[in-house]
Amino acid sequence: MFELDKGIRFENKSNDLLTVGELLVDLISNEYDVNFDCDGYTRFFGGAPSNIGINVSKLGARSHIASAVGEDGFGTFLINHLRRAGMDTSNIQRVHEATSVVVVTRSKNTPVPIFYRGADYHLNFDPSLEHVLSHSKIVHFSCWPISRAPARQTVERVIAEAKSHGVLIGFDPNYHRMIWQRGEDGIEYVKSMISQVDVIKPSEDDAERLFGKAAPERQLERFLELGAKMVIMTLGKDGAIVCNGNETVSFPSCADEIVDTTGAGDAFWSGFYTALVKGHTVRKALELGFAVSAYKLRYSGAVVNLPRIESIKEQFGL
Amino acid sequence: MFELDKGIRFENKSNDLLTVGELLVDLISNEYDVNFDCDGYTRFFGGAPSNIGINVSKLGARSHIASAVGEDGFGTFLINHLRRAGMDTSNIQRVHEATSVVVVTRSKNTPVPIFYRGADYHLNFDPSLEHVLSHSKIVHFSCWPISRAPARQTVERVIAEAKSHGVLIGFDPNYHRMIWQRGEDGIEYVKSMISQVDVIKPSEDDAERLFGKAAPERQLERFLELGAKMVIMTLGKDGAIVCNGNETVSFPSCADEIVDTTGAGDAFWSGFYTALVKGHTVRKALELGFAVSAYKLRYSGAVVNLPRIESIKEQFGL
Repeated sequence: MFELDKGIRFENKSNDLLTVGELLVDLISNEYDVNFDCDGYTRFFGGAPSNIGINVSKLGARSHIASAVGEDGFGTFLINHLRRAGMDTSNIQRVHEATSVVVVTRSKNTPVPIFYRGADYHLNFDPSLEHVLSHSKIVHFSCWPISRAPARQTVERVIAEAKSHGVLIGFDPNYHRMIWQRGEDGIEYVKSMISQVDVIKPSEDDAERLFGKAAPERQLERFLELGAKMVIMTLGKDGAIVCNGNETVSFPSCADEIVDTTGAGDAFWSGFYTALVKGHTVRKALELGFAVSAYKLRYSGAVVNLPRIESIKEQFGL
Repeated sequence: MFELDKGIRFENKSNDLLTVGELLVDLISNEYDVNFDCDGYTRFFGGAPSNIGINVSKLGARSHIASAVGEDGFGTFLINHLRRAGMDTSNIQRVHEATSVVVVTRSKNTPVPIFYRGADYHLNFDPSLEHVLSHSKIVHFSCWPISRAPARQTVERVIAEAKSHGVLIGFDPNYHRMIWQRGEDGIEYVKSMISQVDVIKPSEDDAERLFGKAAPERQLERFLELGAKMVIMTLGKDGAIVCNGNETVSFPSCADEIVDTTGAGDAFWSGFYTALVKGHTVRKALELGFAVSAYKLRYSGAVVNLPRIESIKEQFGL
């Protein structure tokens, strides 16, 4: 299906990318904690789908975000942030649940986040979502919305409608036990999603969480065995390996300066999608995705001030 | 049952007060918010039952707290705080839910809290709780734990066991719609609790939320009609009216300096319970309760550095 040296033919639609998923408030401790005794926290805008939506818009394509927030101050904060970033917020649903929050107390060891999920998984499939979906070229989601009902059913409906409207489906299989309902086998469900989408981008950690430890090539095979059409497996400083079912190609990392890795994966998705809708070949779109990711790595923060994709192309000599 | 000029005969027990209910992290904005754009929050120890437990201990009686926190950093923070306050934490259960959080963004208007309830309502009735309950003179709870199952069933069990072990039951009918599960009639359930306990202390606001607006005397009658044995209705600066079913007595406020009203009601409970277990008459215990509340009002914070009750008695000439 995905020929590396061809572009993807999209129907003429009014929107390029629709991201479906979580909008979150991240509350992050101001200091590194020693004995759980740091008391200052700062509120940040969070949620990968929105970060991708904002990035794509900065890179020069059109994007919409479908998410649910609460009818509370945190929900208003998130919506205000999106508006200031120039995003359309007509598909941000306000629901009768508290806006979802992730608390991160930074520590010298691995920080253990605490998840307070409320509004995010109450995303409904409503006529407005159906409308923007049918008018989009690509739809993207991650494991967050599929980890809990009713958002899970919303995503299942999104997949079905996307197929019937010729919308390309990208899925981030970022499975993590902690966001799943206890007692439920999230892994099997995530595996069952893989054959239903068009593109997946697992990291080595994602693959390990789903299949256990193995060499990248073996992990890639497992995704293909589950019916994946195109797998982009990122390997950190070692770049990525990509397989379309016929051939496997390695892409070296083009990162030159690593200041902060937060949001690097979302930056890849953003560049890749933007390049695809702008008519680049799949190979070039992958290269541009890695270039956007490399650009982001130079700066601190999940969302950085990306230039237009044409400028990235020029800067990275692509 | 409650004769104002007699003390209450307690069996000889190893603990004076057991409080059952919520332990919370309060995340409070550092600044007053205008457009939901203040980003700094500070973490505080919270939960009325614990505050009462700590107060009673400072006043010179023995207390235990039964609560549930998560197996996370916030749970550890709350337990560490209790330990530093010299409290026994053997009845703080650690459960597989996130520690409950209340976010308060302060504003010039009424701040609307956002509730993230997890661990607090997963309090179980376990053998350790049964043991400390049967060895206590008084047990106290508020509307928090009864607002959701399974903590509700735990409190129902606590009431039944308290009765069979001759434990006095105090209940704070601080009903608030926002902590109740949506769609459930919390009001009827709270009303059904009133005949099952020994002492209730509604504020005027509590009464209004349960019965609608009416004069204090009329509200007091309504509590008695529902089977209350002793009602202490607080009227802010106007003191309180108390009825034991036979006679109604007014108590003037003895507050001399009002710096912060947070925790004033819990300070009353603390002084009242401490005085009762120390053998004072009900009337004197009420006076001492109001005196402890007046003492607390002079200082900022929900829990202030209370002296022994004998010192309060002397300071207020009781």
